[in-house]
Amino acid sequence: MRPKLEDVAKLANVSKTTVSRVLNNRGYLSQETIERVYRAMRELNYQPNAVARQLYKKQTQIIGLLFPTIANPFFGELSAELEKGLYKEGFKVLIGNSMNDPKKEAHYLDQLLTKQVDGLIVGTHNQGIKEYNYEKLPVVAIDRNMNQDIPVIESDNYNGGVLATTHLIERGAKKIIHTNGPVELDSPTKRRRLAYEDTMKEAGLVPLTITVDFNIPYSEKKQIFTQMFHDHPDVEAIFASNDVDAALIMQIALEQGRKVPDDLLIVGYDGTQIIRNILPDLTTIVQPIEAIAQTSIQVLKQRLNNKETKTEYVLPVTLHKGKTG
Amino acid sequence: MRPKLEDVAKLANVSKTTVSRVLNNRGYLSQETIERVYRAMRELNYQPNAVARQLYKKQTQIIGLLFPTIANPFFGELSAELEKGLYKEGFKVLIGNSMNDPKKEAHYLDQLLTKQVDGLIVGTHNQGIKEYNYEKLPVVAIDRNMNQDIPVIESDNYNGGVLATTHLIERGAKKIIHTNGPVELDSPTKRRRLAYEDTMKEAGLVPLTITVDFNIPYSEKKQIFTQMFHDHPDVEAIFASNDVDAALIMQIALEQGRKVPDDLLIVGYDGTQIIRNILPDLTTIVQPIEAIAQTSIQVLKQRLNNKETKTEYVLPVTLHKGKTG
Repeated sequence: MRPKLEDVAKLANVSKTTVSRVLNNRGYLSQETIERVYRAMRELNYQPNAVARQLYKKQTQIIGLLFPTIANPFFGELSAELEKGLYKEGFKVLIGNSMNDPKKEAHYLDQLLTKQVDGLIVGTHNQGIKEYNYEKLPVVAIDRNMNQDIPVIESDNYNGGVLATTHLIERGAKKIIHTNGPVELDSPTKRRRLAYEDTMKEAGLVPLTITVDFNIPYSEKKQIFTQMFHDHPDVEAIFASNDVDAALIMQIALEQGRKVPDDLLIVGYDGTQIIRNILPDLTTIVQPIEAIAQTSIQVLKQRLNNKETKTEYVLPVTLHKGKTG
Repeated sequence: MRPKLEDVAKLANVSKTTVSRVLNNRGYLSQETIERVYRAMRELNYQPNAVARQLYKKQTQIIGLLFPTIANPFFGELSAELEKGLYKEGFKVLIGNSMNDPKKEAHYLDQLLTKQVDGLIVGTHNQGIKEYNYEKLPVVAIDRNMNQDIPVIESDNYNGGVLATTHLIERGAKKIIHTNGPVELDSPTKRRRLAYEDTMKEAGLVPLTITVDFNIPYSEKKQIFTQMFHDHPDVEAIFASNDVDAALIMQIALEQGRKVPDDLLIVGYDGTQIIRNILPDLTTIVQPIEAIAQTSIQVLKQRLNNKETKTEYVLPVTLHKGKTG
């Protein structure tokens, strides 16, 4: 049964009038009361009605960005682009790095519900954040399926996977390994894996994907990739799901006496400015970071203005041919 | 003569009562009026008295971070560490990338003065931001001399310069070039240059520093470094003022047929995690990013609590010996 306002009042241990005042943002209310009411709303998955939802109109001109960590070049450049674009639109930007911390992610959603931010742009990796089950929240997701109501902005992951795999096959590789995140993660980036597997099968080759969680420490990744070379000494090419992993794989390959590209081809993914400056030789799939940022901002603005949006926005990727693959 | 409250009222075109209400954050005030009053205060460099300054006590639990761009790995990792630490202390984090945009920097200071943030951590490169001339503002600077009242957190730039230069001399280099930002920039990072020049002279060698503005585009940097090799074909070693420039110099050197380290030694500066993962061979001076972040947070908290702070906090650096130098 759909929860009612009195259920919220009961759970929050306040009067119905107080809940109503919180919803309408009227009268004096302590931050603690506001948060308690919103916590109860969240626990019950209470959906305020259209009138109550008007209160979301009270604006802070602040947008929250929630990514695993801006220390990663892709999220760093994406956040920088988002901040630049949002600033031009009159918004300030709150950042949260939620790497391995679902509680922190929930806390940032509270910020939205308690109107400390106007909207959220989310690209986190945490699982099972059921708090996003509100209707029409001013939230957009980047490369992440939150729920059916939240629009997803992504680059063309499937085509990226096809481009990378086809390129490696054309360069003569047969034993090609792909590294990607856990299949449980509900992200459009899984389509890179699907495209790799489809393309391999179409070419009569055997796909082999090795799972590497984005969020694990560098030392663990190093172990996984070293093991990969040990288990598959005949590997001819690697399609890594991000450039930082590609660079790491390249290091380990060199340590093991393999020459890139003579003994091993490597293709990465992301194509951030910094990686392309530092490692211009890395062949990689380039995501259109500026376009992803701009689209996210425009779609979020539509949500803020209660306009209809599409459920998915797919932006084109390109292959940067370096020397590694 | 010290400006008075009535001067502020006059310039802002409001009554003295309104200025007082803004200062004490009482009664209904439009955001526009608040900003107008603070703009006038700023223009006149009006210093509210101790009582008025109490109003700064109204807390948002938001700290603003102002850096050139978090797309740069050093500022990206630093911002990530600051966000992590501030979140633990109950603060949220607003980011501003002020690269080449002094107006944006001034705008963020307005945020502080209009109490939309509790404090600022600043590491920008813009010149002549006179707006920081308030006393006892809750502001700390990283690697940047703002004014005498604002504490500076920095790594030991002088020792970093000595370590890098001594290391290159010990490896047999005589013609060593240093790249650094413009001398006009009032930043403790200038001490890297000073240390380089002192160390060269002590060893009987001729120092040569090439100026590279941190904020110019990649293509311009490439031009400068290509010119450097053209003008100084006999250069034996380069001490770059940051790792991204070091990586770029390495690329250009390779393009020109020079082998690193056989024909050319390179030492960088910063030692971020991402660069050390991607380019573990790069010899570099490692800044203690986590300690810089933690110290900045602790000093800012002291400022927020009106406690005395030192004017300068210097943290130790280390030399990471890779294979490039």
